Amino acid sequence: MIIVADNLQILRRPIAEAVAKGDAEPIRSMVRQWIAAGAEAIDINAGPAGRRADSPMAFLVDAVRGAASIPLVLDSASPAALSAGLDAAGAPAVINGFSLEPARMDTVLPLALAHQSDVIGYLLRRDGHVPTDTEERMSVAVELFQAFLDAGGDAARLVIDPVVVPVTWQDGHRQLAEILEVLRRLPDLLGARVRTIAGLSNLTTGVGDPERRGLLEQSVIPMLAAAGLDMILMNVLRAQSVRTVHASRMLLSKGIFSWKEV
Amino acid sequence: MIIVADNLQILRRPIAEAVAKGDAEPIRSMVRQWIAAGAEAIDINAGPAGRRADSPMAFLVDAVRGAASIPLVLDSASPAALSAGLDAAGAPAVINGFSLEPARMDTVLPLALAHQSDVIGYLLRRDGHVPTDTEERMSVAVELFQAFLDAGGDAARLVIDPVVVPVTWQDGHRQLAEILEVLRRLPDLLGARVRTIAGLSNLTTGVGDPERRGLLEQSVIPMLAAAGLDMILMNVLRAQSVRTVHASRMLLSKGIFSWKEV
Repeated sequence: MIIVADNLQILRRPIAEAVAKGDAEPIRSMVRQWIAAGAEAIDINAGPAGRRADSPMAFLVDAVRGAASIPLVLDSASPAALSAGLDAAGAPAVINGFSLEPARMDTVLPLALAHQSDVIGYLLRRDGHVPTDTEERMSVAVELFQAFLDAGGDAARLVIDPVVVPVTWQDGHRQLAEILEVLRRLPDLLGARVRTIAGLSNLTTGVGDPERRGLLEQSVIPMLAAAGLDMILMNVLRAQSVRTVHASRMLLSKGIFSWKEV
Repeated sequence: MIIVADNLQILRRPIAEAVAKGDAEPIRSMVRQWIAAGAEAIDINAGPAGRRADSPMAFLVDAVRGAASIPLVLDSASPAALSAGLDAAGAPAVINGFSLEPARMDTVLPLALAHQSDVIGYLLRRDGHVPTDTEERMSVAVELFQAFLDAGGDAARLVIDPVVVPVTWQDGHRQLAEILEVLRRLPDLLGARVRTIAGLSNLTTGVGDPERRGLLEQSVIPMLAAAGLDMILMNVLRAQSVRTVHASRMLLSKGIFSWKEV
């Protein structure tokens, strides 16, 4: 399970200020800190301004690249911002992402195919809503995968995001149980090895107390790991959560037990 | 997932001293402490002295009962000690346990049936060894379940223990992955709802550093919970591990999200 930092969000004040000033150094400094904390890839969330000509995506990509050669996830609803990010990245990056929603399917997916990028596909219905139960999640997964293949996609480039919702929602933990089941059944269902990603921070949105939030994260991480999750999008500055990823991964590895991995 | 304290072991000095003096009060005091810490049942490990006429099992059962009315697990290789424990307990207790090993199958299982007790069945081969892979674990489970039914057992009284081994063993974490799979597949395999139990302390035997041991426990607990484990045998004085059980259980519950359960 690869750790993707979700710390680089334009809506966070220090990032917004660095972007406004056109000063990449604070961002480079943060990137180095995140990598030291355990980030193995960085999600760049360029925010809702993506449709504007002055999208900060390219600036952010350059800033991260100035600090480290690390895999990037380009996170935007705007095909223009994603395209600018891909151009700036040079090396392949993961596009985040598309779904059965026509607005995404018709714009983001072709972009990923044209750039031969990895691309994240969300398990959302055509109307943009989260599926209501396991069966609907599974049928959305099949439909998404088929649409991806029909468009000419290579299964090895798809990363499915089952879309976790806050556990504090009235049915949040029922949905968590369903998502674990979907993650476990996905390889059989699709008849192919398709990677998966989930956003940990989403799960604990609305939990104000840091200790409780930490406890929830540390309980969910091993469940996701054991269900076969490949990439986890998370706040890498939560040290105990990062350690839990390392411990889970070591426990589930095929190799010989080694503390070096923890 | 019910928390069964594994703290009451005759081999621990304070317990041995209380037994030697015939003084139940220190044990009663410990039992109250364990319950306050989260114990929902107590495993009484009366040790290898079980075959002697002066087995401490009955004394220990009386001591625990003097502190609280809490479910008991009677843990001994000796049918005589188990029998004495059942007589002392009065109320039903779980017998721990039998396996395909003839010495256990022919003595412990009949005792459980005669007392209509719940009984733990270990997934061990006839020769007492741990199965070598998932398939063998599954076939041992089927054979054990069938032998239990053939002897007149009621599926609702069986508790299967898949026998976790230390993750520090060369293939310890491969075995953990297999055990998670067995736990998930057991209901389909047996065609019945059979409860399961696992010993957490076994998993981290040989890990000296308390912080690392805690991290491993806290990573394994959610995996076992999500795989459907019903009872976890653990040191209830590890507060963070107990909290992880509570958080895992709340995350996997069918009810509405509530911090009261954590």
